[in-house]
Amino acid sequence: MMDAPSETGVVHPYWPRDLLIPSYVANDRSMSEILAFLFSVSGVFLLITWVITGQKGDYGSFGIWRRLAVCWFAVCGFIHGVIEGWFCLFYHIIPGDQSFLSQLWKEYSKGDSRYVIADNFTVCMETVTACLWGPFSFWAVFAFLTNKPYRYVLQLIISLGQLYGAVLYFFTEHRDGYAHSELGHPIYFWFYFVFLNVLWIVIPLMLIVDAWRQLSAAQTVTDQKRSQKTKGH
Amino acid sequence: MMDAPSETGVVHPYWPRDLLIPSYVANDRSMSEILAFLFSVSGVFLLITWVITGQKGDYGSFGIWRRLAVCWFAVCGFIHGVIEGWFCLFYHIIPGDQSFLSQLWKEYSKGDSRYVIADNFTVCMETVTACLWGPFSFWAVFAFLTNKPYRYVLQLIISLGQLYGAVLYFFTEHRDGYAHSELGHPIYFWFYFVFLNVLWIVIPLMLIVDAWRQLSAAQTVTDQKRSQKTKGH
Repeated sequence: MMDAPSETGVVHPYWPRDLLIPSYVANDRSMSEILAFLFSVSGVFLLITWVITGQKGDYGSFGIWRRLAVCWFAVCGFIHGVIEGWFCLFYHIIPGDQSFLSQLWKEYSKGDSRYVIADNFTVCMETVTACLWGPFSFWAVFAFLTNKPYRYVLQLIISLGQLYGAVLYFFTEHRDGYAHSELGHPIYFWFYFVFLNVLWIVIPLMLIVDAWRQLSAAQTVTDQKRSQKTKGH
Repeated sequence: MMDAPSETGVVHPYWPRDLLIPSYVANDRSMSEILAFLFSVSGVFLLITWVITGQKGDYGSFGIWRRLAVCWFAVCGFIHGVIEGWFCLFYHIIPGDQSFLSQLWKEYSKGDSRYVIADNFTVCMETVTACLWGPFSFWAVFAFLTNKPYRYVLQLIISLGQLYGAVLYFFTEHRDGYAHSELGHPIYFWFYFVFLNVLWIVIPLMLIVDAWRQLSAAQTVTDQKRSQKTKGH
């Protein structure tokens, strides 16, 4: 890690290297502690939802793909609501803060320094994600478990919101010339910045297609019923 | 209009007043010509769609609200596809260009100068709007006219995309302290910046609620059918 002093003399690991982050304090938690927390808590949310969706309920029995989709929303609820929720509440103090979740964001920022400089678009997009897609994700879990008629509408709304957010996230950084990360770094650029975020492009796209099919099929049934009624009279 | 010379000596009408726009050339078209073009072409799209949706078709007869919604998508197709399409193709030359649509954007920028400085978020959001919500809007007109089962899914996707774009548009500018307009100016701030964009918050919100209801009702019918079948066996 090239921790060269910046112009204010504050050493930081972020790109571009001449970024000024006067309040920066280096993490005292290791990368492995932070990743272990993120993946184990996500794993707990996933497992609990997997077990719950394995029982018979209002919905009859779920297929494997539906169970996985509901687990995905549980994990999204945690990541949007808690992890991104923390960012949108504390982005202004994160660079100098040593709370666990602030350290998580300082670690992640090695792949995208927009999170330690409170980049305007990033704060706005994360606020919408935390305040809307977070609670909506837990609502979607509830909606599938109780077989609510709006469950696929909610799936479509959350997935399109996540997809649009992720597209703008990559598109703005692409037009910035990937200046906020060490381009090509195997962990920070490829794993943190590219892989972790591409998940929110690939999975929402699949869930949008799924919701489109389910809702169109339901509409077809309703339209046929209505046209039979019209012909009947 | 306070056309004070900026630091490069180029006089421009944009805020913040110290903005540097070296290539800026003043419009030779008047505000009224530009607004007349925008509203009359939008009006033509609206009228044609109003007439078409007044005929009986695959869908039986449309109610007044459904006709208005389809007209809205026709106007959106024009504004996203043509007006915003122009911006996302030519944002880099607009300040110095005298094509009619470039002049339209120079006029609009008096209410939001992010359009003459190719602000990164603005370019990204407008590109998605022009390339996706534009064509999708015309597709929605077609889908309603031909009573496609996915018509409300499309309505939901376009409306949520527009709403999210507009929310980020206002939110980023709010966090910038409304620096890109003369705060409180009756035409530039209130009409161009606030009113014209609030339309893409209010109307999409109504259309999302409408799509939610339609799709949930259709899903209810399908779910009932399925549960009757399960009980039958």
